[in-house]
Amino acid sequence: MLKQDDQIPLYIQLKESIRSSIVNGDLKFGDKIPTELELSEEYKISRITVRKAIVELVEEGYLVKRQGKGTFVNKRKIERKIVHFLSFSDACKANGLKASSKVIKKEIIQPTSKDQTMLQLEDGDALLFIQRVRYAGDSPIMIENNYFSYKEYHSLLNENLDGSIYKILEEKLGVKPAGSSELSLEIVRAGDEEMELLNIASGEPLFFMDTTVTDENGQPVHRGKQYILGDSYKFILKQ
Amino acid sequence: MLKQDDQIPLYIQLKESIRSSIVNGDLKFGDKIPTELELSEEYKISRITVRKAIVELVEEGYLVKRQGKGTFVNKRKIERKIVHFLSFSDACKANGLKASSKVIKKEIIQPTSKDQTMLQLEDGDALLFIQRVRYAGDSPIMIENNYFSYKEYHSLLNENLDGSIYKILEEKLGVKPAGSSELSLEIVRAGDEEMELLNIASGEPLFFMDTTVTDENGQPVHRGKQYILGDSYKFILKQ
Repeated sequence: MLKQDDQIPLYIQLKESIRSSIVNGDLKFGDKIPTELELSEEYKISRITVRKAIVELVEEGYLVKRQGKGTFVNKRKIERKIVHFLSFSDACKANGLKASSKVIKKEIIQPTSKDQTMLQLEDGDALLFIQRVRYAGDSPIMIENNYFSYKEYHSLLNENLDGSIYKILEEKLGVKPAGSSELSLEIVRAGDEEMELLNIASGEPLFFMDTTVTDENGQPVHRGKQYILGDSYKFILKQ
Repeated sequence: MLKQDDQIPLYIQLKESIRSSIVNGDLKFGDKIPTELELSEEYKISRITVRKAIVELVEEGYLVKRQGKGTFVNKRKIERKIVHFLSFSDACKANGLKASSKVIKKEIIQPTSKDQTMLQLEDGDALLFIQRVRYAGDSPIMIENNYFSYKEYHSLLNENLDGSIYKILEEKLGVKPAGSSELSLEIVRAGDEEMELLNIASGEPLFFMDTTVTDENGQPVHRGKQYILGDSYKFILKQ
């Protein structure tokens, strides 16, 4: 199938052939790919050429090697660029997936002193807490806990929050989330709430992202605490 | 012990009392702290005051609640700020820990096409691969795989690499790592190599950081792939 006299090096031709089988779904997550020897015989190319193609596909995250077991198609991760500010909805769109949400909780709660500082609340101001599970396609990907100043954002209680909250903020309140004034990333293990809402086993590793989102003028919009499936997500901080 | 007539609110006094017990080591990772009721009796304050102190200590990462089991002292994480560029050595220093390294491999290898692009290599240029385990105090924290242009950086082979490579680059080669041209973060599970080098169980979650580090002029210095213990690390991206 590879063109021996082509301008394009054989290893790149093989790499593209395997990559397109993964992208178009002929090869699926967990599928074992043939050994180096099998591929070199099938495509009539050297094992060194095969190895070079495989190494690059592993490096790019399409394949994963398991010692003593072989090479397998890797799980596809949603790449979320936070070089510039990018919402989950936008990240899904950029990855060709449809984002949706399910509202779990809408509550009025008391702020912690950190909430007060980060959101510039006045004494006595309450918080509007919105908890949602966010889906990419049919798969639950994260629990999103958002905390807004109740005084400024109570009108969100009257909105349908199954879509993009940021779209509502922008279109109805003229507020455009554009950056963050704090952002940290940790790995945590799934507890009872995460198990139930994300349909995962106890102890599964999750990204925990803690952030305060700001508008175009650097004014705080909300605090956010997200628990994100570790095997479905990749943060791109610079590219 | 708390001062009822003090200017400082009681919950903050309690919070500081618990926090300082953790920082000075009287309370250690995994220790269970007394219940709300016990604390309110011990300090002669209301349960609401106790709860407020506990909530904030949980939020700040000093304590962790386990449903149905109680509240425990949390594992201390190394906070690595990547708002501005910060090396592991610097991150340890900022966290009051001594950084050290153990060299596992020094090899001359062939670059992938991505290595060639990111490091601006010419055809035929080889890579110098340096693998180290990096320690904070006595604990192995990460496996660091660094890839340099062999042509430009082969003199590193003659250096003692148990300390900071960046210090050698700066003092002997006049190259100051200052930023990155790509940076991504994922969660991966420990395989055989990680188990052995980091002394952890199979499947433990690790941060996988993939980066190309640049100097003050934006010129590439090296590529880096780090496998970092998930329960020991927190990335601060903005603050």
